Amino acid sequence: MPSIAVVGAGRIGQIHARNVAANPRARLAGIADLDGSAAARLAETLQTRVLTLQSVFEADSVMICSPTATHAGLIERAAAAGRPVFCEKPIDLSSPRVRSCLAAVRRAGIKLMVGFNRRFDPNFSELKRRLDAGEIGKLEILTIISKDPAPPPPEYIATSGGLFHDMMIHDLDMARFLLGEEIVEVFAAASSLVDPTIGMSGDVDSAVVTLRTAHGVLCQITNSRRASYGYDQRIEAHGSEGMLRAHNVTATTVERANASGFTTDPVLPFFLERYAAAYRAELDAFIDAISGGKAPSPNGEYGLRAQLLADAITDSARSHRAVSLSGEL
Amino acid sequence: MPSIAVVGAGRIGQIHARNVAANPRARLAGIADLDGSAAARLAETLQTRVLTLQSVFEADSVMICSPTATHAGLIERAAAAGRPVFCEKPIDLSSPRVRSCLAAVRRAGIKLMVGFNRRFDPNFSELKRRLDAGEIGKLEILTIISKDPAPPPPEYIATSGGLFHDMMIHDLDMARFLLGEEIVEVFAAASSLVDPTIGMSGDVDSAVVTLRTAHGVLCQITNSRRASYGYDQRIEAHGSEGMLRAHNVTATTVERANASGFTTDPVLPFFLERYAAAYRAELDAFIDAISGGKAPSPNGEYGLRAQLLADAITDSARSHRAVSLSGEL
Amino acid sequence: MPSIAVVGAGRIGQIHARNVAANPRARLAGIADLDGSAAARLAETLQTRVLTLQSVFEADSVMICSPTATHAGLIERAAAAGRPVFCEKPIDLSSPRVRSCLAAVRRAGIKLMVGFNRRFDPNFSELKRRLDAGEIGKLEILTIISKDPAPPPPEYIATSGGLFHDMMIHDLDMARFLLGEEIVEVFAAASSLVDPTIGMSGDVDSAVVTLRTAHGVLCQITNSRRASYGYDQRIEAHGSEGMLRAHNVTATTVERANASGFTTDPVLPFFLERYAAAYRAELDAFIDAISGGKAPSPNGEYGLRAQLLADAITDSARSHRAVSLSGEL
Amino acid sequence: MPSIAVVGAGRIGQIHARNVAANPRARLAGIADLDGSAAARLAETLQTRVLTLQSVFEADSVMICSPTATHAGLIERAAAAGRPVFCEKPIDLSSPRVRSCLAAVRRAGIKLMVGFNRRFDPNFSELKRRLDAGEIGKLEILTIISKDPAPPPPEYIATSGGLFHDMMIHDLDMARFLLGEEIVEVFAAASSLVDPTIGMSGDVDSAVVTLRTAHGVLCQITNSRRASYGYDQRIEAHGSEGMLRAHNVTATTVERANASGFTTDPVLPFFLERYAAAYRAELDAFIDAISGGKAPSPNGEYGLRAQLLADAITDSARSHRAVSLSGEL
Repeated sequence: MPSIAVVGAGRIGQIHARNVAANPRARLAGIADLDGSAAARLAETLQTRVLTLQSVFEADSVMICSPTATHAGLIERAAAAGRPVFCEKPIDLSSPRVRSCLAAVRRAGIKLMVGFNRRFDPNFSELKRRLDAGEIGKLEILTIISKDPAPPPPEYIATSGGLFHDMMIHDLDMARFLLGEEIVEVFAAASSLVDPTIGMSGDVDSAVVTLRTAHGVLCQITNSRRASYGYDQRIEAHGSEGMLRAHNVTATTVERANASGFTTDPVLPFFLERYAAAYRAELDAFIDAISGGKAPSPNGEYGLRAQLLADAITDSARSHRAVSLSGEL
Repeated sequence: MPSIAVVGAGRIGQIHARNVAANPRARLAGIADLDGSAAARLAETLQTRVLTLQSVFEADSVMICSPTATHAGLIERAAAAGRPVFCEKPIDLSSPRVRSCLAAVRRAGIKLMVGFNRRFDPNFSELKRRLDAGEIGKLEILTIISKDPAPPPPEYIATSGGLFHDMMIHDLDMARFLLGEEIVEVFAAASSLVDPTIGMSGDVDSAVVTLRTAHGVLCQITNSRRASYGYDQRIEAHGSEGMLRAHNVTATTVERANASGFTTDPVLPFFLERYAAAYRAELDAFIDAISGGKAPSPNGEYGLRAQLLADAITDSARSHRAVSLSGEL
Repeated sequence: MPSIAVVGAGRIGQIHARNVAANPRARLAGIADLDGSAAARLAETLQTRVLTLQSVFEADSVMICSPTATHAGLIERAAAAGRPVFCEKPIDLSSPRVRSCLAAVRRAGIKLMVGFNRRFDPNFSELKRRLDAGEIGKLEILTIISKDPAPPPPEYIATSGGLFHDMMIHDLDMARFLLGEEIVEVFAAASSLVDPTIGMSGDVDSAVVTLRTAHGVLCQITNSRRASYGYDQRIEAHGSEGMLRAHNVTATTVERANASGFTTDPVLPFFLERYAAAYRAELDAFIDAISGGKAPSPNGEYGLRAQLLADAITDSARSHRAVSLSGEL
Repeated sequence: MPSIAVVGAGRIGQIHARNVAANPRARLAGIADLDGSAAARLAETLQTRVLTLQSVFEADSVMICSPTATHAGLIERAAAAGRPVFCEKPIDLSSPRVRSCLAAVRRAGIKLMVGFNRRFDPNFSELKRRLDAGEIGKLEILTIISKDPAPPPPEYIATSGGLFHDMMIHDLDMARFLLGEEIVEVFAAASSLVDPTIGMSGDVDSAVVTLRTAHGVLCQITNSRRASYGYDQRIEAHGSEGMLRAHNVTATTVERANASGFTTDPVLPFFLERYAAAYRAELDAFIDAISGGKAPSPNGEYGLRAQLLADAITDSARSHRAVSLSGEL
């Protein structure tokens, strides 16, 4: 049973550490965090050890859940130590830095999995399975709707890399996951409508992006930093022989009827609730990769490709032109 | 093109008269009503004549939409005049009176159609069609939910014949329509929960009735005189190979999402809105019957059978016992 | 009661002529069509007269339902005759020709209403009413989905003016209707995925368009010439305080459950069924305009504005750049 | 942290044992089963010990998941040992035996919780919470629909106690849970429609039951041993100011549209899937009861009351009469 060390005791580190602790196929080696007391609290809850950054790489494998700026360096240390590694997205906000990091990974021959958790959502993975099974013929138009319940605080926005790199990057990976062929052109239109401080900081909070593949398949992504009814996460795939949709998820199936109409629950509040099952399935995939001969997926290249799309989209939003992508990495 | 005279210029008479006026396959001969000014107003709106009760039977056919107490007598006058006749339910609140009226109809050989409009609702008739097509195998349990939006005024209740004869009779005919075999046993449980004045008048306003056919198929009917969310009209048919449901109908498909959840329209307010299409289709069926060799359906016997069920249910509600029905009329 | 003459006995002319015949507030003056036998058949069904193109303008008002190429000329004849006129969209495929026609309308001072029927759909007009009532705060992202059930025949495509002018023009008017402020920038991505003969003729059959208003509100329009599940017509409005959606419309509310899941009806097949109520309400609005002092809406300017958007979108689809629009007509 | 021993390594014992093992607030003391190899397999999977029936009562508390015939005896042994105990329903198929067992429990002063898991379903407990919060005013008509996906094997039926005691007993407890006042009268109509071997064995497989409370509130329960579309578990509560419904639960939110219509998932297959969360919450409630001063709920009296209802319903199904219940136990 492989041991897994978790770096980072924040919100996402807590999710992964708890899932490792509860997973019968792996052992939680311990928790490391620059904030020692955060590490200690989490380690105590999960009855595991606090690790130094040094000792992290003595575990059989490592999950990196620390701040973005530390990701690439930690991956390279894992590479140096020959340890398979899971890293939360993004590897780095700079694509050249991602490239150099991936080169280190390749040289060391370690396995690297990137945290695009939505691929593991039961609804989206079922949609993917049925798409691949040909249920709607050939895919023609893909629509991804992704809205956060409320904008993050200004200090988060400041270091986030912007809406396209911080938020839409999940949708860009989802587009790649479902389209099944590379995207050759992107176009973005974006505004700051939700919160003027976001606009003043040079970022946007509302965006509509169009992607096109080599075969002309079209994809729309809609992002907003605010949805009063919860964490809006939907997909709609239009094909030659039908449509597949993954609707939102609610806490219960209770509905009330009165003179105002029929009211069902708002959607689940945010990613902790909505993607709880996805995080567990993601961990299973990582354990599969570190336990056997299976290649990790999504891997570092997937992280880079999503990032290059976000780069191009940022370009397009500024230039008001479609931006082409070459197939090279 | 056959002419149709309408007796009764009240709420239901207005529906039928308007539908006759708009139907390209029939001609509105005129309107009769004891309240001459009501007849005059409706006749003016529809650009037709006011008729005396005498002249009504000079038309090719007659639709009886006057108060219940006048139904049987008017049907007998139509029989005497040899005119096909449509009569709103019920023929009479007394089953013996219904029997004597039907005897007159049989002797005269006239066609008599009874106003069980719900058979013609597009949703319920489609459910029936698919049930008959075998979509869910053999029917095992039928559930009919039927709730008025609000209780009628006390003076209406007083002469209504009671909830079972006034309101549930529609559901009893619907049960016969869908079950496809005669009902041999009924059981009723009823309460006055909505409006104490209804209970004080000796009537009930909430009822749950169980029917059973000779082959053991079960049917539930739920009635309430009040549903805050509109005129609740639903059917659910459970069969050996699946379930068919007809859901409620709403005015629009608009839905709002906010922090309270997702809210769709309340159901259509009452029968004028919900059964508008049914009344038109019902008229078409009457015109078919009077224009050609087609037998009218539902006919007078259907009216009597529903009434005998209501009689038995009234018995059961008092005795707290199941009441058996013979197959004879 | 004003008389209305209908020019054109084709599919859309039949709808309007039937609605005029059934409307108690107007009189059908007659039908004109270059194909005399088509006019005669329709006139006979509706018990009205066949008109020559000359006599059409003797009626109190005219509805133009003939082929597109004849629209502008007929509007100008109505202007010359001083008759209020309803014209199916578009006024002309050439924007300069539309401008000269509108100049004639202005000079004559006649009322001109343009057939953007979807504004009158009960679902969309209710969504508009609730949007205007502030139910979701400020509108931020508008999504319009509009897919035909199946591509038209090649000969129709050839003279249609292309997907943007023939099909999306309805959605562009809907965008203007709902956005409540002018659109200043458009971007289009389009492909031929449905039918290669459409692509070979230089047209597209699948398109995703982004619009932006002066205040940065974003709008997406999705078009496809084929939806295997019916005529897909949906709107979703995302605002600062919630979301409003108008879902598709089905023939019945019947649902079947079996081992395959729960299945409801496909959506209504095409515009005749889906927009039946819209056509009737549109006629009522035209009658309001010709009967009283009310200005017609949507008027000729609305037709021109939608067309200028379609022109700009065609540009954008070719240049892969966003195209700006000035506010001038 | 209290230890819990599990008696019974069958289907339901496995659920509870796994939940205990995964619950951070309790410790799994071990597994006992007459079939030693079943106990050994489960104990190995969960890394716990195999217990003898003797050693079971050395744990801090016991969960009884063995066959029904052993329940009362095991509860009495727990009482003798002074151990709090959770017992799967029913305590015994004979009500007198249940009474004598409960007397032993009372004398010993131990805590006894009965396994009515559905009270802990997130949908039903939320419906209960909102009912109690007054969302729909006063409850008037309660409808419980409960259908198994497929009939059990004949050998199960033979020792099950019959549909009312084996299957409907859950719905009877649910009725008591939601009605909030005691039931004073029951009426049953039942048939064997699903499987003739069930009828030949003297049992029924389809049933419709009506309950009435002292205040006249009505409740319907519908049971079938077969639903081709999954484990159908729904509740509908009609009140003076609205309706609350808990709909079925599906595996995913994926929907497909094609020419056949819009199809969503069938409902979850059976109780293992549908009530997974309920079993976990039920265990939490048991741990609350054994860890602190909290009284267990539902307790043994609840088990007896549901059973007396099932007894009365069995009477009614035979006699075709309503059967009254006194409030005494």
